[in-house]
Amino acid sequence: MSSSIRVTVWNEFQHEKSHQAVIDVYPDGIHKVIADGFKTHGFENVRTATLDQPEHGLTEEVLAQTDVLTWWGHMAHGKVDDAIVERVHERVLQGMGLVVLHSGHHSKIFKKLMGTSCSLLWREAGENERIWVIEPGHPIADGLGPYIDIPAVEMYGEHFDIPAPDTLVFISWFKGGEVFRSGCCYHRGRGKVFYFRPGHETHPIYYQAEVQQVLANAARWAAPGKGPEFAYSGGRAINAKVPLEKLD
Amino acid sequence: MSSSIRVTVWNEFQHEKSHQAVIDVYPDGIHKVIADGFKTHGFENVRTATLDQPEHGLTEEVLAQTDVLTWWGHMAHGKVDDAIVERVHERVLQGMGLVVLHSGHHSKIFKKLMGTSCSLLWREAGENERIWVIEPGHPIADGLGPYIDIPAVEMYGEHFDIPAPDTLVFISWFKGGEVFRSGCCYHRGRGKVFYFRPGHETHPIYYQAEVQQVLANAARWAAPGKGPEFAYSGGRAINAKVPLEKLD
Amino acid sequence: MSSSIRVTVWNEFQHEKSHQAVIDVYPDGIHKVIADGFKTHGFENVRTATLDQPEHGLTEEVLAQTDVLTWWGHMAHGKVDDAIVERVHERVLQGMGLVVLHSGHHSKIFKKLMGTSCSLLWREAGENERIWVIEPGHPIADGLGPYIDIPAVEMYGEHFDIPAPDTLVFISWFKGGEVFRSGCCYHRGRGKVFYFRPGHETHPIYYQAEVQQVLANAARWAAPGKGPEFAYSGGRAINAKVPLEKLD
Amino acid sequence: MSSSIRVTVWNEFQHEKSHQAVIDVYPDGIHKVIADGFKTHGFENVRTATLDQPEHGLTEEVLAQTDVLTWWGHMAHGKVDDAIVERVHERVLQGMGLVVLHSGHHSKIFKKLMGTSCSLLWREAGENERIWVIEPGHPIADGLGPYIDIPAVEMYGEHFDIPAPDTLVFISWFKGGEVFRSGCCYHRGRGKVFYFRPGHETHPIYYQAEVQQVLANAARWAAPGKGPEFAYSGGRAINAKVPLEKLD
Repeated sequence: MSSSIRVTVWNEFQHEKSHQAVIDVYPDGIHKVIADGFKTHGFENVRTATLDQPEHGLTEEVLAQTDVLTWWGHMAHGKVDDAIVERVHERVLQGMGLVVLHSGHHSKIFKKLMGTSCSLLWREAGENERIWVIEPGHPIADGLGPYIDIPAVEMYGEHFDIPAPDTLVFISWFKGGEVFRSGCCYHRGRGKVFYFRPGHETHPIYYQAEVQQVLANAARWAAPGKGPEFAYSGGRAINAKVPLEKLD
Repeated sequence: MSSSIRVTVWNEFQHEKSHQAVIDVYPDGIHKVIADGFKTHGFENVRTATLDQPEHGLTEEVLAQTDVLTWWGHMAHGKVDDAIVERVHERVLQGMGLVVLHSGHHSKIFKKLMGTSCSLLWREAGENERIWVIEPGHPIADGLGPYIDIPAVEMYGEHFDIPAPDTLVFISWFKGGEVFRSGCCYHRGRGKVFYFRPGHETHPIYYQAEVQQVLANAARWAAPGKGPEFAYSGGRAINAKVPLEKLD
Repeated sequence: MSSSIRVTVWNEFQHEKSHQAVIDVYPDGIHKVIADGFKTHGFENVRTATLDQPEHGLTEEVLAQTDVLTWWGHMAHGKVDDAIVERVHERVLQGMGLVVLHSGHHSKIFKKLMGTSCSLLWREAGENERIWVIEPGHPIADGLGPYIDIPAVEMYGEHFDIPAPDTLVFISWFKGGEVFRSGCCYHRGRGKVFYFRPGHETHPIYYQAEVQQVLANAARWAAPGKGPEFAYSGGRAINAKVPLEKLD
Repeated sequence: MSSSIRVTVWNEFQHEKSHQAVIDVYPDGIHKVIADGFKTHGFENVRTATLDQPEHGLTEEVLAQTDVLTWWGHMAHGKVDDAIVERVHERVLQGMGLVVLHSGHHSKIFKKLMGTSCSLLWREAGENERIWVIEPGHPIADGLGPYIDIPAVEMYGEHFDIPAPDTLVFISWFKGGEVFRSGCCYHRGRGKVFYFRPGHETHPIYYQAEVQQVLANAARWAAPGKGPEFAYSGGRAINAKVPLEKLD
């Protein structure tokens, strides 16, 4: 199924320049593999952007041409310019979809959109994860079986300090004894946000077919709707001076 | 935008045989106008079914070929066979979309799916209604402005005894002083349910463009997903005898 | 902290008469242990009721004097009289709290209130369960640590065919590889419903301090509010003939 | 019913120093009237704090002794120190309740907790408002009838750019034709947040008995729970190095 949804895959792209264990798994960067996954699923307009590019590759022009932005970051959250975070935030409220991946839970943009610490438990022990589908009728579960098995992961555990999702699609089980809300849908402004847990810089998780399936589903779900627009910008409320009905 | 979603428009089709005021507005039945609206929006597979047909027109075969069922009833809820209600219920849990309209709030199938009385306040005074979009990024709001104006309606007011919707898309304002949650999304089993308030047998509401737009949007949203199937039938839990992980 | 909340602990009380393994754990019935737990937590008005009593012990009078009803059933769901189920359902809509326990997921009253099959996966292997707190600010989590460990349980796994809870308080982890939404809050009508997974006829789970703590918390949360009453009964909508505002 | 919940009523307290029309209604400040309302409802520990005090009256010590903070601001949102906003935010995540009033929708703390613009429509025309109870079993509706009438208000209309509330308790109707989600509950971290629309500097709304009732209910609901604590501070995830279960 081909798609004209315009996806921009953002990656901080730091680990892949400095850590051999990461280079071994993602020699061209995590973004390359994620972008390839979208192409496999028929997305015809996929670009990438990274931290070291001017304006982190997220210029006004790029964002204006982006329907869905995916976000991967880990070691350099603090290096993301606040002005760019504002710009992305504004675009999400206006309707752009945002898919936040794995360690992106601590990105500035996700914390700003959630309003909470977005903190969690974690452990690097290479244990296995099983991601259960909780809402089988949700489009983000399309093409999946009752669960996804991932053989070796970094664990993320509850309490995950996020707002309760509008729709909880996945819950993860970890060998070491934890659970995690790993597929979380949110409406924010006119935009849609999906947090998806899997993925790590030293595990080849973004090569896995089910994970790529979920990302494709998520982009389709998060693409902008055609509902009414709203003057989100500038922080001003709107004076509806003339009432719609006659007042006494 | 053409669509291969298979829609069955169900109508009890009673008022239109006996009440002249209804015949004047819907001479071929409410279902005819609703079905025409879907066709206008590119739906290529639209059929109708009514109470007086054998099995109310909802045979196993018809339901097996239905992606989304719309339901209009009012004066004859009690005449709907419990066995057919069970059959529709089962199909919804398996993934069929259900769009319940106006006085369908008191239909057996809606009450069974909601688990509450689904009762409300009402008044027939021909006052006007304004339906506000609350979740502008939701696909059911596609193509709408900030609100829909309906010039003359039967009022439905809170308290509306339903479960809080998974997503509340619309809230109605009525001239006489009431409000109403008038666009309510639910996941139930593998299926999706949308309740949409507008529509009445003596007001030409299903001819209105925005209302037809919402119905088309709702059918697209409610169409079955491709997520994992589940053995909902027969009321038996599933013995997962062999654990996925080694027990001690 | 003493409480005047009037609790009725309902138990089908069948296994405890016929299965030695159950008698060994609950010689006076599961209801006795649950009721004792409430008393430990300061509840001064606790009674019990069982299937074999006239009207299953749930007469109009008993229900009229019940603020919160807890429900345990397993092998005899089908023997519960539909008229009693209607009566309990009506009372919940009017404001009575309902706490449904473990295998009560397949009780008539829970299925009626949920509108879904309430089915799930299960396995009897005596594995351990860890119940994680997902919403740490919810009153049902009062007095708990980050999780409750239960050493040996019957497993319940997703997909659990329920409506998404209004608030999800707990998620369970099972040794064998499954997860489960094990603490689920619902508003239904004017009443509140809490489903709590733990408990089984052959494991001494209702003796466990944290489980008793959750049941006490749940009863406090589910006790009737003092909000506006509503004419839920009789299935009639209410004609608000006189508008609150002047119509043209 | 007396209460030991410690409430701090915060008010920017600017209009009441400069605008005669405001002084006429609230000669000692809006906070005085709100605080008196809490006392009427049996709250024994009520203090006030205002913008012009050192640290806006919200020192570490004051917040440490506050169970529930209420927030009224309008013309001076921008003058609230970001460091104080961070401090309040942190306390909410740790468990302090926050009740945001009327024009507080555009306060820094509310926008930070919501993650959206929190913008809306407004009109000053002195029209009447009717606040309908949507969730009659919720404790914030205690003691109310089906609706609250307020004779003259500033209108706030949808679209209100907030996350869908965890629980929507009230919806407002306005004479001029708008609706508004006017009672919104949120869990954020270990804390609870309630947004309540009514109130304005030139209308005597905080003197109204039903409004004071809702504020008392809201403080009781939002008071800190005794659930598990979590290390929200400092933005660090927690390394759960030692697994709870044996890994291979």
